[in-house]
Amino acid sequence: MNDLLKTQLGAFIDLTPATEHLIESCFKHRVVKKNEVLVAQGSIAKHLYFVVKGCLRVFMVDDAGNESTRFLILPGRFGTAFPSFILKEPSAAVVQSLEPTELLLLSYEDRERLNREVPGWETMSRKQVELEYINSIRRIESLITMKSVDRYQLLLKSNPDIVERLPARIIADYLGISQETLSRLKNQKSIE
Amino acid sequence: MNDLLKTQLGAFIDLTPATEHLIESCFKHRVVKKNEVLVAQGSIAKHLYFVVKGCLRVFMVDDAGNESTRFLILPGRFGTAFPSFILKEPSAAVVQSLEPTELLLLSYEDRERLNREVPGWETMSRKQVELEYINSIRRIESLITMKSVDRYQLLLKSNPDIVERLPARIIADYLGISQETLSRLKNQKSIE
Repeated sequence: MNDLLKTQLGAFIDLTPATEHLIESCFKHRVVKKNEVLVAQGSIAKHLYFVVKGCLRVFMVDDAGNESTRFLILPGRFGTAFPSFILKEPSAAVVQSLEPTELLLLSYEDRERLNREVPGWETMSRKQVELEYINSIRRIESLITMKSVDRYQLLLKSNPDIVERLPARIIADYLGISQETLSRLKNQKSIE
Repeated sequence: MNDLLKTQLGAFIDLTPATEHLIESCFKHRVVKKNEVLVAQGSIAKHLYFVVKGCLRVFMVDDAGNESTRFLILPGRFGTAFPSFILKEPSAAVVQSLEPTELLLLSYEDRERLNREVPGWETMSRKQVELEYINSIRRIESLITMKSVDRYQLLLKSNPDIVERLPARIIADYLGISQETLSRLKNQKSIE
């Protein structure tokens, strides 16, 4: 089993050989190139993705064709176009690789099977969704109440490397600010 | 057991007399007046609230003293200042009753106990948090991409009664628009 996945699971699940075998039989391995679309807008997200290496971006496209990044799925994390995956409805969001990316794929049915059959899996699932929910609450809070400088500093604090690693266009978009504002924030220590 | 709670649980849990007894022993009943603060900013949210009657509002206050509504907890729903409740950290948000409200209170420890001991409870917990997470994703999407008219129509569709029931100030604030814009939206059938 992949080491990163093993570390994630180990905190919640007693990984006996039989359990490991069942879990491994549920995941599919996939390597994608940069900018590959995994879930298109209007299609149904059939998988939950565990990122082994690289990065996925979940973003929206409005009627005018403007993209806005909803979130990023970094190595060691599970993610997908969640509303589409859970409710089996056409996705409002697009899932795309930002870099060459290595993934483990879990279908809805296999996820439900692991929730039912592997002791500890459902507790892990619940706690992961609780933390994703908390992240999304913080995102809402930052969109509602924070100034762009505070949002930038929150991102720097929670994900120090991605600000340097990803294109400025994606970061600016994620923060809901212009690229000019982002570059001003990067170059200044404080701003009103 | 309260009928509304029984309906909520019945879909996931086999309510034997012993299970019902255990569940009832974990909930505390409380009636609060209008505008009562249940979780103050900076305090720790000690309970998950099940609303039997009335309505709770979860809102933020920024440094300038401006309030912004994060969400509303309506009858038949569980909710609280979730990040504070789960992470046991000081709450960024305030939880307050908007009307005279009847509640059932569940502590963190009792919730974990029910997750461990009542078959089906953790599946219900997980699926509820999944739906709350989906709602918060939609909220983020609407804050990022939607025009005020779309946000207003989404609210009308998902909660038709609250637009009439609650003060315009709260609704405008929830939608991130001015009261003037809200009253224009209420009076117009379409707007660019």
